[in-house]
Parts: sequence; structure tokens; C-alpha cells
Amino acid sequence: MFPARLIHAIKHPLRAAPGGRAAAALADENAMWQLYQFPLCPFSRKVRLLLSEKGVGYELQRENPWEGRDDFFAMNPAGRTPVMHDPDRGLTLSDSRAICEYFEETEEKTPLISGTATQRAEIRRLIALFDENFYGDVTEPLLHERMRKRLLMGQSPDARYLRDAMRLAHEHLYYVDYLIDHRPWLAGPTMTLADLTAAAQISVADYLGGIDWNTHEQARSWYLVLKSRPSFRPLLSERMDVIRPPKHYAEVDG
Amino acid sequence: MFPARLIHAIKHPLRAAPGGRAAAALADENAMWQLYQFPLCPFSRKVRLLLSEKGVGYELQRENPWEGRDDFFAMNPAGRTPVMHDPDRGLTLSDSRAICEYFEETEEKTPLISGTATQRAEIRRLIALFDENFYGDVTEPLLHERMRKRLLMGQSPDARYLRDAMRLAHEHLYYVDYLIDHRPWLAGPTMTLADLTAAAQISVADYLGGIDWNTHEQARSWYLVLKSRPSFRPLLSERMDVIRPPKHYAEVDG
Repeated sequence: MFPARLIHAIKHPLRAAPGGRAAAALADENAMWQLYQFPLCPFSRKVRLLLSEKGVGYELQRENPWEGRDDFFAMNPAGRTPVMHDPDRGLTLSDSRAICEYFEETEEKTPLISGTATQRAEIRRLIALFDENFYGDVTEPLLHERMRKRLLMGQSPDARYLRDAMRLAHEHLYYVDYLIDHRPWLAGPTMTLADLTAAAQISVADYLGGIDWNTHEQARSWYLVLKSRPSFRPLLSERMDVIRPPKHYAEVDG
Repeated sequence: MFPARLIHAIKHPLRAAPGGRAAAALADENAMWQLYQFPLCPFSRKVRLLLSEKGVGYELQRENPWEGRDDFFAMNPAGRTPVMHDPDRGLTLSDSRAICEYFEETEEKTPLISGTATQRAEIRRLIALFDENFYGDVTEPLLHERMRKRLLMGQSPDARYLRDAMRLAHEHLYYVDYLIDHRPWLAGPTMTLADLTAAAQISVADYLGGIDWNTHEQARSWYLVLKSRPSFRPLLSERMDVIRPPKHYAEVDG
């Protein structure tokens, strides 16, 4: 499905290809970014946390990538959220890691991929671990069973797949427990994009009822600290159409 | 399977955690990196191309991640190739994007994630497009059908999945055609890590008989230029056990 849309993007060239109009336009400090996303996209949540920690203003644009809207594929041939678009400067950014690196390079406030090259490699290793392994093991199957099946197919989730995802979530949380036993934050002495990435994935899994916090004291304390940050609050108050989170989801008092 | 190994890594703490012994050890310019990989790992190929273009020496260590070797999981809890290990400095790096960013930051020669923040975002967008979408649509199914099934299960490939992968490969190559119609290299005016990433994925798909170069003149010329580079030659001469590539695979004269 995605590559057929690449063809679409070819027939209808990018309206705002990176590097296109940008060079000609004057930088405007007050220009407002638009962030195309849906409430349970873990990669959009990561970007929102980073933007908020860095104090970058943005406007939310609801995008359901599964609807395959032509204008969305024209912005991102991969057809995935998040996409950042600045109409005034004609800039379009996609892929959550590319977006985060962009704002890390352009916004000095609150460095989140910081330290020596070795420390930055450790931050990026953990980002990949959560964006690829945790997502593939836990978030993606939960989103498929509990969201896509309901919204797109009118089907109920398959209990076997839910059980597998929840079992794998436990294994990942044991690793978080282990890291937090040895370091104040996942990648070392300071909060980094690794923490925001892991928390973004875990928050979507938690919304979908996939996280059992029992026996994960270290992971739970670390996550409660993140949930209490002002950057996290707006995410916790949003709801995804007909799907409701468990009672503990938005609680920050333990 | 992978998260069970996370537990293993917890019980047997990392022998050489990033940031661990590194600070205490003296940097040694002649220290030799070991690269754990297998010949058809597209992510290891990307790292090898980058190291070679930058003139960084390394030693190949054959690793079949599907064998689940304990010492390998101790180095990388994600259980994936590539892993870079420098025993003298006690440094271990994993995740191919984290590895590439590390060498981009520490080796000045031949910048491969270069330019303005916007240009770097475009390079990283394309890296994600090939490492995630092309890999998921094409390389991964081909590796599963033609390599894993044969080596691990003694089974023949399923023709339906091969056909799907080859059809999707065409769609991706149309996008390469489109980009090369508009730019000298995939991400812009110079060769970048986007080109090496795409070529690494395509080379594995080509080895496995998944690429039909007919009707892709622009992609084909771009790929022939890359294949002719000294960094690419060692990859093309290697063979994966009992699996043989098609005749055109290692040819660089068109």
C-alpha cells in the first residue's frame, strides 16, 4: 500500500520538499509548525514531548494515516505520522528520529541527545530499542488488536495476541528496571530523548491496557516522574475516539 | 525471543557497556574495531560502506544472530547485527543508525550526514525510508523466504511472498528513479549516508534475486556508480554459505 503511494507522490510532486522553498524564505521566529499526528501514535508522542521540553510551539493537525489521504502522502511518501510542516517557510520534515535530530540541532534549549559521542551513541541505541523492538513487540500489536481492528474492521481483539504483547511488555519493563537500578535515567545521569522515547511507547501501551505495573517498581517510579512533567500532561488528557484507557492511565500521584 | 534475552543480559551484565571503561582508557588511534555481522545483513553493509568511505579500519567477526549466542546478547540486548566492539577501549556500539552517527561525529573524513539542519533531516528521512520501509517491504521478506527458511527450517521459499516483495521493490525503485531525475544523489548534490543505506538494502535484495532492473534506468545508473566504488567491492565478492546470487549481482560494467 505504501509503495503504491510513492507513485502517487511522484505524479504529484512534493508540495514542500525539504530544502525547496526554504532557502528563499526568510526565517521567522514566530512561524508556527503544524504537527500531523493522531493521539495514539507513539512516534508523534515522542516528538511532542521533545518540542514541549524545548519550548517549540506547534499546532496539532489530526491525521489518520490509515485513511491514505492524498495530501498527506504528498508531504510524506512513507505515509506515516508524525510529519512536521511549516507553511510559511515551505518546510516539511518526516520520520520521528529525523525530526528530533533536526530540533536538537536547531534549538539550543534543553539538549536531549547530549554528552560525548559515546554517550550520544548510548542514547540513540536506546531510542532504537524502544522505537523498533518495544514497538514491534508491544505497541504495534496492541494498536492493531485494540485500535485498527475496532476502527477499521469492526472486529474484537484476539486474546492470544494481547497476551503475547503483555508478556513481552513485562520483559521490556524488566530491562527498564535494570537500567534504572544502575542509572538515574535510562541513558545515564540526565534525562534524554531515550527517556522520552521509552515513555512515549509505554504510554500508548498503557492506554491500551497492555502494561501491568506490578513487580516493576523502578520502571514505575521512573515513569511517574516523567508523567508529572508539564510536557506529558497534554498527552495524558487526550482520548482516542471510542477507545478508553484504564483508570490508572493519567494518574500521576502513584 | 529477544526480550527473554534482555533478561539474560540483566543476569549477565554487559561486559562492555557504552560509557563504562571508556572514560578510564586512553584513546588509541590504532585500536581495531571488531564488526559483528553476517554477509547478507543490510544494516551491517551500511556500516561497512560508511567505515570504508571514512577510512576507519575494522575486523569482521561473523555473527549469525538467529543462533542466539549468549556473548552476543551480552553485547547487544536487542540481539541484532551490526555490533561494533573495541576490546582495547572497552567500547561497544549497537544499532546501525547510532553507529553511523557515532563515526560521523568522531571521524572528520568524508562527511556523510552533511549540510544544513534541513539537508540533514532529508538525509535521515531517506535513511529511515530504506531501513524501515524498503527493509520491511522487500529485504526482510526476501531474507526470510530465501535465507532463513533454507538455513533454519530446510524449507523452500513461498512464491507468493517472493512475488509480493519483487513487486514492492519495483515501487521503491520508481521512487529512486524519481529522486535521481531531480538530484545527482538521493538526498541532494553530494553522496550521503542516504545513498549508502539505500544501496546496502538494494544490494541484499539483488543478491537474493529480488530486483528486476528493467525499466529503472536512473536507479540502475546510480547503483552502478555506487557498486564501482572501492568501498563496495568487498561486499560484492562475499558469498552467503549455500545461497548464490544471480549472475549480474557483482558486475560493475553495466
